[in-house]
Amino acid sequence: MNQVSVFPMGGMGNVTQNMFLYQVDEEMLIVDCGIGFPDMYMPGVDVLIPDISYLLKQLESGKKIVGMILTHGHDDHIAALPYILPSLPEFPIYASALTAGFAANRMRDGGIEREIKVVTDHQWFEITQKFQAQPIAMTHSVPDTRHYAIKTPAGVFYHGSDFKLDPNPVDGVKPDFAHITELGNQGVLCMMIDCLRVERSEWTKSESTVGPVLDTAMGKTKGKFIVTLMSSHIHRIQQIIDSAAKHGRKVAFVGRSVEQNVEAAVTLKKLHLPQGIQVDKRDLSNLPDSQVCVIIAGSQGQEGSSLVRAVYGDHPMLQIKPSDQVVFSADAIPGNEVPYYAAIDELCRNGVHVIYPDLEPNLHQSGHASAPEQQELLGMVKPQFVMPIGGADRHRVKFVELVADQVGVAPERVLIPGHGEVLGFGTGRPEVIDQVTLQARTVDGLGVGDVGPVVLADRRALSQAGMIVIIVPRTKRGYDLKHVSVVSRGFVFMKEADEVIEFIKRTTAEIVNELGRKAKDDEVKRTIEKRLGRKLYKVIQREPVIMAAIVEV
Amino acid sequence: MNQVSVFPMGGMGNVTQNMFLYQVDEEMLIVDCGIGFPDMYMPGVDVLIPDISYLLKQLESGKKIVGMILTHGHDDHIAALPYILPSLPEFPIYASALTAGFAANRMRDGGIEREIKVVTDHQWFEITQKFQAQPIAMTHSVPDTRHYAIKTPAGVFYHGSDFKLDPNPVDGVKPDFAHITELGNQGVLCMMIDCLRVERSEWTKSESTVGPVLDTAMGKTKGKFIVTLMSSHIHRIQQIIDSAAKHGRKVAFVGRSVEQNVEAAVTLKKLHLPQGIQVDKRDLSNLPDSQVCVIIAGSQGQEGSSLVRAVYGDHPMLQIKPSDQVVFSADAIPGNEVPYYAAIDELCRNGVHVIYPDLEPNLHQSGHASAPEQQELLGMVKPQFVMPIGGADRHRVKFVELVADQVGVAPERVLIPGHGEVLGFGTGRPEVIDQVTLQARTVDGLGVGDVGPVVLADRRALSQAGMIVIIVPRTKRGYDLKHVSVVSRGFVFMKEADEVIEFIKRTTAEIVNELGRKAKDDEVKRTIEKRLGRKLYKVIQREPVIMAAIVEV
Repeated sequence: MNQVSVFPMGGMGNVTQNMFLYQVDEEMLIVDCGIGFPDMYMPGVDVLIPDISYLLKQLESGKKIVGMILTHGHDDHIAALPYILPSLPEFPIYASALTAGFAANRMRDGGIEREIKVVTDHQWFEITQKFQAQPIAMTHSVPDTRHYAIKTPAGVFYHGSDFKLDPNPVDGVKPDFAHITELGNQGVLCMMIDCLRVERSEWTKSESTVGPVLDTAMGKTKGKFIVTLMSSHIHRIQQIIDSAAKHGRKVAFVGRSVEQNVEAAVTLKKLHLPQGIQVDKRDLSNLPDSQVCVIIAGSQGQEGSSLVRAVYGDHPMLQIKPSDQVVFSADAIPGNEVPYYAAIDELCRNGVHVIYPDLEPNLHQSGHASAPEQQELLGMVKPQFVMPIGGADRHRVKFVELVADQVGVAPERVLIPGHGEVLGFGTGRPEVIDQVTLQARTVDGLGVGDVGPVVLADRRALSQAGMIVIIVPRTKRGYDLKHVSVVSRGFVFMKEADEVIEFIKRTTAEIVNELGRKAKDDEVKRTIEKRLGRKLYKVIQREPVIMAAIVEV
Repeated sequence: MNQVSVFPMGGMGNVTQNMFLYQVDEEMLIVDCGIGFPDMYMPGVDVLIPDISYLLKQLESGKKIVGMILTHGHDDHIAALPYILPSLPEFPIYASALTAGFAANRMRDGGIEREIKVVTDHQWFEITQKFQAQPIAMTHSVPDTRHYAIKTPAGVFYHGSDFKLDPNPVDGVKPDFAHITELGNQGVLCMMIDCLRVERSEWTKSESTVGPVLDTAMGKTKGKFIVTLMSSHIHRIQQIIDSAAKHGRKVAFVGRSVEQNVEAAVTLKKLHLPQGIQVDKRDLSNLPDSQVCVIIAGSQGQEGSSLVRAVYGDHPMLQIKPSDQVVFSADAIPGNEVPYYAAIDELCRNGVHVIYPDLEPNLHQSGHASAPEQQELLGMVKPQFVMPIGGADRHRVKFVELVADQVGVAPERVLIPGHGEVLGFGTGRPEVIDQVTLQARTVDGLGVGDVGPVVLADRRALSQAGMIVIIVPRTKRGYDLKHVSVVSRGFVFMKEADEVIEFIKRTTAEIVNELGRKAKDDEVKRTIEKRLGRKLYKVIQREPVIMAAIVEV
């Protein structure tokens, strides 16, 4: 009998870093290759990428990667490609048209060129004899999102990553319920399903409800109409363009990510720009404000983004005036509230009219299915087993009660593997066949993986109370305690800290004297770091990172 | 004519750090004395306190503080007392009973004892001939919240800080509309009004709607019922106690802030504990789980809080089991999402049933008035001028359109002073009579005010890429470039970084050699820091803090 297994290399309980490994005997199929985003406990880290050490181990043991499927064009599903592909042998990559276009851009950004095979909806494509797959039309906040049926000798898997069930999608490509039902009738062994929005009990509103809200706002605007949104949101961009055409405004795209995505979407005919509607951002000042619509990157208030530069009067091509209307067509992502609202506050201070979802919730709609939509899809696929994915642990757990239970799928048919667990499918309930230690790998500047837990712990400590370096000269006659020097950053303002510096020097001398002449450098160093830390805490209740350096002279 | 002015020492556009200064001629009246909370850009800082330098300057010039009014018992209105009072002369402090109780606790925590005069609702009390004040019954998320009418020679000010209009408050003390209307009819010069929730268009739900939701959850619980909430929320605690009594559960209070606030509220008869219902937390294990209700501090998932210790199995008196029900009766405060949801995820992983506002929004209701409530109160007070307070700049600006405009108060009657502006009231529209440079003061450990912008910028830089210290020995014959040593933290994992260290040493030698023998220590130091930074960035695209130290040997 064939050995079939599934393993999320980005970890279960992680919303991002999506990368799944399907294995049948010696063959391995990868689905998605996404980045993750560092939280407050990972300062300085640019992005996180999945840990492929298990995959490499399997390759070493003689297994083979037969292909990779990309479900849709969001960074948490494709943007790890340039980091991960170089360490792997060649294999075919499959995706829908726009997904392939976005993935090619990401790879190019990282200096990689790889062909991607564009697949056709509802047609099985053969990866190997053991793996056939089929894209299924689905809706989400980026066009060309697809679910995939993956046929293996053990049965069919339904890989239902990020989706919503939009009855009225902007491009008219609806989730193909008839086809999904048929797949379900033919029998599905296991369904993976996006559970991120399981806490919501109301059907997520259609993306097409956002257009009219933006259109109304545009109609009321006298000056420039400036919208910021997630740059991959091609359907929302389409709705804004259509409104601009109606209101006699030209459209300028500002910001690298928006410009790049728009270009890819236009080339692939996934975005329609009426003749003559586009204006180059460099020509904005030649148009009357009332004829301008700007679609701009920076919807999270990111430092250095085009929007933020414009907000603070620092953009060479876009001046925002009180007569303009600025629209945030995106929620703040949790953790980004400070810069997001700082941009809105600054606009308000400058007398610019700004609207955002706290004022008008319909300025943004989620791309994820709520509990009733998850129930609907689960009810159609009717799998033997279901595995909630794409959510945090609370979402996976709540899925049992709020989705599975509601459509009669018993808890024992819901699979909630732990972080690092490889699930084997045979007869009966799938079992954990391997336990992998997963560590998200950090990308920091040009370094991949060299910023680990120790470095991050140091950065957190440094951020809390700074650093003190104590330099103790040592001559042949012993430590020269009269010439101890202290340098520090982020601790106290040194010009005002004579007293503290004196305390540190005095205490260091005491500690070294106590240790006596026979103590070795290493012991002296460690003892200073430890004891001085404790003494300093008593005096000022802060815990700077303390380093002692002994310099032989 | 009397010179009357108003100045927010915590700054306008700050939600927290509430501290207002009313001045009439030589007399100064303070309202509130609250802390603020550092954001992600202020790592390591414990709290922020208002900048009282203007107040001190006024004192020096011969003015006099005649009193302080505390509006309610939240930390952003009272918790700066122990930091600020020691630098000021004595003056009487006025507050409602529970506010005085909470303030006394905060002061005691900081080693201060000061008498607070408890004032009576709807009775004028004379502070001086120029200042009379009167507490007005109001509702908010802490009992005994009061608005204050402040009578001055220039007219009456209505100080309407944090409130909601709760038609059905738990203690039955409703906002006194009849009295407020009467005050309004007598004429109010200027109304300050909490505008924080101006973005919301639906009347904020009554606190009394939360009790039944908690009661239903308690009724379904077989094991322990464990609720976490803001520890000052005495009315919610009352509702939980009442449910516990009904369901035959004893109540234990766990966590310093909850225990302290409950004790103060019981003593002042603001919280009713039925005979025998309380159980000491140390005796919890002697009761069957089904007879236990725990009210516990840590609703934001704060590290080290009682809840978080219990969640991670680290609390000596409280073990959470899968049969227990944990309830988060508080929203995550923006910026706190990571630890808040980490606690919920951990409970879910452990199979504990947990509910929280994302699942059941009625587990929490805000304490702040939405736009229609603000309209209602403004319509009753009918002031000549209105100044939105307690909100960010976007809330103050939106107040004009969403509140003032809706009840016919023209924009020129809405006062939106800038940060640091002192507003003088004479005839006609109030004018800016002074501009103060306000800098929020930081409290970090035992240090107050010594962590300023430079130290914070260093901490941020340190957190992003760590620190490298280069020690260059100098002998009488010049710099000893063979014995340069490099120490670092938070940059790369040093054991794996031989190459980088070698690069740093080599580059340092090059830089020093280029400078030549005549360069002074200071120039050498600065040049190493600058050039090495640039070269390192090219190699690894990180910007660690670089410090060079020259050690004379």
